Amino acid sequence: MRSKYLLTPGPTRVPSSIREVLSKEIIHHRTDEFRDILKKTSEGLKYIFCTDNPVVIFASSGTGAMEAAVSNFCSLNDKVIVIVGGKFGKRWAEIGYTYGLNVLELNIEWGMAPSIEDIRELLDKNPDVKAVFTTLCETSTATVYDVKEMGEILKNKDTILIVDAISGLGQDRLLTDAWGVDVVVGGSQKGLMLPPGLSFISISKKAEKFLTISNLPKYYYNLSKALKSYGKNDTSFTPSVSLIRGLEKAIDIIREEGLENRWEKFKKLAFATREAARAIGLETFSKNPSSSVTALTVSGITTSLLVKKLRKDYGVSIAGGQEHLKDKIIRIAHMGAVDIDDLVIGFCFLEKALREMGYKLDLGASLAKLQEVYYGESFGG
Amino acid sequence: MRSKYLLTPGPTRVPSSIREVLSKEIIHHRTDEFRDILKKTSEGLKYIFCTDNPVVIFASSGTGAMEAAVSNFCSLNDKVIVIVGGKFGKRWAEIGYTYGLNVLELNIEWGMAPSIEDIRELLDKNPDVKAVFTTLCETSTATVYDVKEMGEILKNKDTILIVDAISGLGQDRLLTDAWGVDVVVGGSQKGLMLPPGLSFISISKKAEKFLTISNLPKYYYNLSKALKSYGKNDTSFTPSVSLIRGLEKAIDIIREEGLENRWEKFKKLAFATREAARAIGLETFSKNPSSSVTALTVSGITTSLLVKKLRKDYGVSIAGGQEHLKDKIIRIAHMGAVDIDDLVIGFCFLEKALREMGYKLDLGASLAKLQEVYYGESFGG
Repeated sequence: MRSKYLLTPGPTRVPSSIREVLSKEIIHHRTDEFRDILKKTSEGLKYIFCTDNPVVIFASSGTGAMEAAVSNFCSLNDKVIVIVGGKFGKRWAEIGYTYGLNVLELNIEWGMAPSIEDIRELLDKNPDVKAVFTTLCETSTATVYDVKEMGEILKNKDTILIVDAISGLGQDRLLTDAWGVDVVVGGSQKGLMLPPGLSFISISKKAEKFLTISNLPKYYYNLSKALKSYGKNDTSFTPSVSLIRGLEKAIDIIREEGLENRWEKFKKLAFATREAARAIGLETFSKNPSSSVTALTVSGITTSLLVKKLRKDYGVSIAGGQEHLKDKIIRIAHMGAVDIDDLVIGFCFLEKALREMGYKLDLGASLAKLQEVYYGESFGG
Repeated sequence: MRSKYLLTPGPTRVPSSIREVLSKEIIHHRTDEFRDILKKTSEGLKYIFCTDNPVVIFASSGTGAMEAAVSNFCSLNDKVIVIVGGKFGKRWAEIGYTYGLNVLELNIEWGMAPSIEDIRELLDKNPDVKAVFTTLCETSTATVYDVKEMGEILKNKDTILIVDAISGLGQDRLLTDAWGVDVVVGGSQKGLMLPPGLSFISISKKAEKFLTISNLPKYYYNLSKALKSYGKNDTSFTPSVSLIRGLEKAIDIIREEGLENRWEKFKKLAFATREAARAIGLETFSKNPSSSVTALTVSGITTSLLVKKLRKDYGVSIAGGQEHLKDKIIRIAHMGAVDIDDLVIGFCFLEKALREMGYKLDLGASLAKLQEVYYGESFGG
């Protein structure tokens, strides 16, 4: 029995083979040995981001790389569109306001994905928009957005597409280059199965041109400087050596299974999670659910109490809702190292905790459904 | 025999007891368990920083926290003094220019400490100076600055004193509150014996007032937000969970030995290093040498080649010089977990490598002197 069951949308469980690497003796970062590791991780990140462009690594949480995307690609008063359908879309907008951008918020109901027609219309009305900021998986509502379509409508425009894929990367399909995505932001503690502390940012050729005209202040996150170091298998500032060695191992794991296989696996895990939940009366909150995390409404239950109880009594960490969804939903992640065994454990204790809170359910119903859907042939299992 | 001997001024060797903690299963950061760790590390950092004020932790390298000090305590066109006597003083100035500050550089010869009279004079001529930026140990020249005196002359002024103690912290004496230092920046991979990836910033009551009037953009490094989270034993953004658990262990180690004892130990290790070097003809570069790192000139030797040879042939990592000192000096760190045994190894291979490069020396002379000085009674050993 593991000491803790982590089913939160970050940090996620770190496999023991990666944890072993984290405890290796530290090596100096300005050495051929470390440059070889950087080169290997750089190739691996390109594979995972589905891009031929550079993917720069920072020692910071994902939010730092989001800020880097604003301060490096934009200038004061630039007009930008931000898709706001949850806490992380709001974060893009907040960073934009912080840096004095002219932010056009495309607000959508939490749990909905944006309408591509609405984006197209807003762009037509504002041909001077410099960038569109969106999330791939809006973690707060467990909703995946149609980034492919967004890339399509920006294809022949001077506007760049900037995607926060922090929670979606590795589970929700994202073909960065093929879809015409210019900038993708990622983090270590979700699909990449690492502890928190690394962030990533991919930069297309089109976006690279924006770097030279940006007039906003940045130093630690200076992407021009970072790209120059990147070209020499180096980093501008001291990198997080131990986590990058862990990344090398995580990439091995992902390569071995194959990105396409993993996308299919998580899609199925997500579907099985929704069906299992439905078998005990919990409804899927999102109208366009993600493969990375599932949000569920629980009738008659204050979800923050359920989350606390699960953690305290059963060692199972799931997430509650954020902001106005605080007591309305629970969120169960299936990302990174999470697999069917983790979900079986999760539903086992979820059923038990719900019963103890007076919620009526048939014991075992979610577990049976999970098994039936995930391994059964009728669901293409 | 350890695989690598790290005598570089960061990253430094991470003791195995800390490395073991780094490989523990990951825990979620919004839990009582993690809040307890944050509380404990917060108390420990106060001890190490010698302050009763908050010490905020970021997931980033030290440079990020330096940038935070500029973007949070200053406003556009603010007049500030920066002591520039090496690469890291220059970094303060560069960040200042990046954010549009009116930077008065007090340039001193590399290897010298600033004259307190010069600082006083510059302040008298510019009573509107908002902040003085300095380093404690200027790593590029291995020189310690008299921060105590700087605090003294700023005591009854509205100017705040901001110190980059990234490499000095834990070795070079720094009494933050007693000396009137307002802001101290630290990093994880030096005196704190951790991998790179954490930065720290302490904030005095006087400095806290500056936060509210600053008009420079910041989001990830927003210190007002960070202080609010700090008050709740929380962090604004996902913290580097594994490294903070390592920090908890590092603090235990430092507390057990005692900060005062460690300052004395490193002072002696630094003295022994200088004397051992002198015994084989290497001269101390700095006119005011630090307890954290020693810079040495090596007559007739291209130091970058010596550094490479030591690493390649003997697995010993020391640092060369930076910028115009690139081929002029070597730098040997005695910080964090480094002790007399590491230095014995270092000088053993340094002698051997020097001989192979045609440098004349009496084999064993530095080792004998190191031993004599460190353990001998005539040096107060």
